[in-house]
Amino acid sequence: MENFGYIRFKDVYLGGSSATVGRKEAEGPLGDWFDLVDTDEYFGMPTFEQGESEMVRRNLAHLFEKAGLKDEDVGVLLGGDLLNQCVGTSFGVKERCIPFLGLYGACSTIAEGLLVGSALVSGGFVPSAVAMASSHFCTAERQYRFPPEYGSQRPPTAQYTVTGAGAFYLTREKASLRVADGVIGRIVDGGITDANNMGAAMAPAAADTILRYFDHSGRRQEEFDAIVTGDLGMEGLKLTQELLRSGGLDISSRHMDGGVLIFDAERQDMHCGGSGCGCLSTVLGGYFMKRLQAKELKRILAVGTGALLSASTPLQKLSIPGVAHGVCLEVV
Amino acid sequence: MENFGYIRFKDVYLGGSSATVGRKEAEGPLGDWFDLVDTDEYFGMPTFEQGESEMVRRNLAHLFEKAGLKDEDVGVLLGGDLLNQCVGTSFGVKERCIPFLGLYGACSTIAEGLLVGSALVSGGFVPSAVAMASSHFCTAERQYRFPPEYGSQRPPTAQYTVTGAGAFYLTREKASLRVADGVIGRIVDGGITDANNMGAAMAPAAADTILRYFDHSGRRQEEFDAIVTGDLGMEGLKLTQELLRSGGLDISSRHMDGGVLIFDAERQDMHCGGSGCGCLSTVLGGYFMKRLQAKELKRILAVGTGALLSASTPLQKLSIPGVAHGVCLEVV
Repeated sequence: MENFGYIRFKDVYLGGSSATVGRKEAEGPLGDWFDLVDTDEYFGMPTFEQGESEMVRRNLAHLFEKAGLKDEDVGVLLGGDLLNQCVGTSFGVKERCIPFLGLYGACSTIAEGLLVGSALVSGGFVPSAVAMASSHFCTAERQYRFPPEYGSQRPPTAQYTVTGAGAFYLTREKASLRVADGVIGRIVDGGITDANNMGAAMAPAAADTILRYFDHSGRRQEEFDAIVTGDLGMEGLKLTQELLRSGGLDISSRHMDGGVLIFDAERQDMHCGGSGCGCLSTVLGGYFMKRLQAKELKRILAVGTGALLSASTPLQKLSIPGVAHGVCLEVV
Repeated sequence: MENFGYIRFKDVYLGGSSATVGRKEAEGPLGDWFDLVDTDEYFGMPTFEQGESEMVRRNLAHLFEKAGLKDEDVGVLLGGDLLNQCVGTSFGVKERCIPFLGLYGACSTIAEGLLVGSALVSGGFVPSAVAMASSHFCTAERQYRFPPEYGSQRPPTAQYTVTGAGAFYLTREKASLRVADGVIGRIVDGGITDANNMGAAMAPAAADTILRYFDHSGRRQEEFDAIVTGDLGMEGLKLTQELLRSGGLDISSRHMDGGVLIFDAERQDMHCGGSGCGCLSTVLGGYFMKRLQAKELKRILAVGTGALLSASTPLQKLSIPGVAHGVCLEVV
C-alpha cells in the first residue's frame, strides 16, 4: 500500500449542514441558499474577531437545531479558520461540551474536516462528528493585509475573503447522502510568491489531488455532476484546468469553484472571486448540500484548496505552498 | 454511545521517534536523551521562522533515517506548531511527497497528532503515519510577546517556549511499543485571562481529560508508570493535581510534566518551566520513548495540554480556554 492518500469510507452519512454568511455573500448569486444571514459585520459583538466566533457559534447552533442534535449526540467537533491560532473556531465552540480537534488547512479546512471526521466515524471511533470551517472578511483583511478602514486598493488577481461559516453533521445513522471516499492532499509548491495571487499558488495542489483521486478511486469524471474546487477563483480555476489537461484530464465541463460561484463578477466586482475557509464551507453547506438533498445532483467531488502562507512568509520572500483535500459527497 | 471522546486503537505500533532541540534544552536535565542538537538558534537559516522549519525538516529526516523510511512508506504526515498558520510545519515538510494534515492544538498538538494518526492507522485508512509538533523560543517570543532582543522581563508564572521538534512513526507493522487508547479533549475555559499564566489556563482541561480517561478506559492509574502532562509547568501541575483530588483522583505519585522535566529549575532559572508544542513532543520523543523502548517503563499516559489563545485575544480581554488530549503508549 503506497501513500496515495486515497481513502474509502463505510457508512458515513451526511445528517445535515448549515451555512451562515454576511451581507455581501447574501447579495451574491447563491444568497437564497444560505441558512442564516447577518448584515452586521460584528454579528453584535464588540470586535470583528469576536464577531467571527459569534457567527461560528450561531451556525453550529442552527445545525444542531435543524438536525435535532444535543451536545451528547456529537462524538467530536473538527474545525478551523484563518485567524492566528484558529481562535475564530475555538472561541466559537468553547461552550460546547464536545471533544474538539483543531485543524489548520487554510481554505482546504472544510475538506480536511470532512475527511478526518468521516474516517473517525467510518472507523467506529466516534458515532458522529461535525466538520466546520469559517472566515471573516474584516478579520482576515486586517490580519493578512491592511485594516479594511484603510481602503487599500487590491490588484485584479486578488480574491475577497468570504464572511461565512459552514458546518456538516456526519453520522453512522442512515441518511439520504453519504461521504463515499476522498484523497488527503500533498503540499505542492509551485514557486508563486505573490500573496495577491492565491489561485495560482493553489492550482498545482488542486490538480495533483484531482488527478490522484481519479487515478485511485476507480471512478470516471463522467460519474460526477460537479467537481467543486474552493477557492481557486477565476485565475486559479483556469490554471488548474490547464494543469489537468497537461495531465490528460479535461474537467472543464463540470468544474466549478466556490470562489467563482459565491459572488457576481460583474455586479459585485470582487476581482477574482471569493476565498477563505468560509467560502467552500458555505457554498457546499448551503448550495450543494441542498441540491444534493433535492436529488438535483447525484454526486460531487469537493476539493478544498489551501494556501499555506502566513502574513510573515511573503515578507521573508518565501513562496506559497498549496494543499488540496478531496472528498466525494453522493446520494445514497 | 456518548461523546466521551474515549478511543481504543487496534494494531497501532510505534516504529520510532526523533527529537531535535536547541542549546538550552540540550543543557537541561534531559539533554542526553535527545537525538539532535543545534546550538545555532537560526539552524543555519536567514530568519528564526525559517530556522524553525529547518529544525522540523532535519528532525523528520532523522526519523526517516532511524526508521529506514522513504516518502512512499508513510501514508500521512500530521502536525502543527505555534506559528501563525502553522508555517513552521508546512514549510518544514513541503518537499516531502506525502499526504499532509495540518493540526492546531497549541501545546496539545503532538497528542492530537498521535490520536488522529493512530485512528487513521487503526481504521486501515493508511498503512502508517508520522505525527509531529514543534516550537521555537525566538519565533514564539516575537509573535506572542516581544522580540527576544528587547530583553523584556517575565513574571514568575511565565513559561519558556522550548526550541524543539518531535516526530513519531505510527505503523501497522508489529513493533515493541504501541498506542493503546486515548481521549479526545474538550475545550474547558476556567476564566483565566493572564497570558503569562498558561498553566492555570490549561489545568481544568488537563484534569477533565485525565478524569475521563480513567472513567472510560477501564484502567486504574496504578497500571501506569507515569502520567506525563505537557506543558503545564510547575504552577499548572499543582493546580491540575488539586483539581483531580477534588474529583477523587490523586495522581501526584506518578504525575510528571514535560515543562517541569525539560529545564533545571534552579540552575537554568526558567520560571515555571518549558512550554510550546516542541516541549512534550521532544520529552516524549526523546526521553520517554527511549525509556519505554528499554522497558524501564511499561506504560505511560501522555496528556498534551494546549492554551487556545492568540496574541490578539488577551488584548481583547478574552479568557484563555484550554484543551488536553490524552494518549496511552505502552510496551507490547
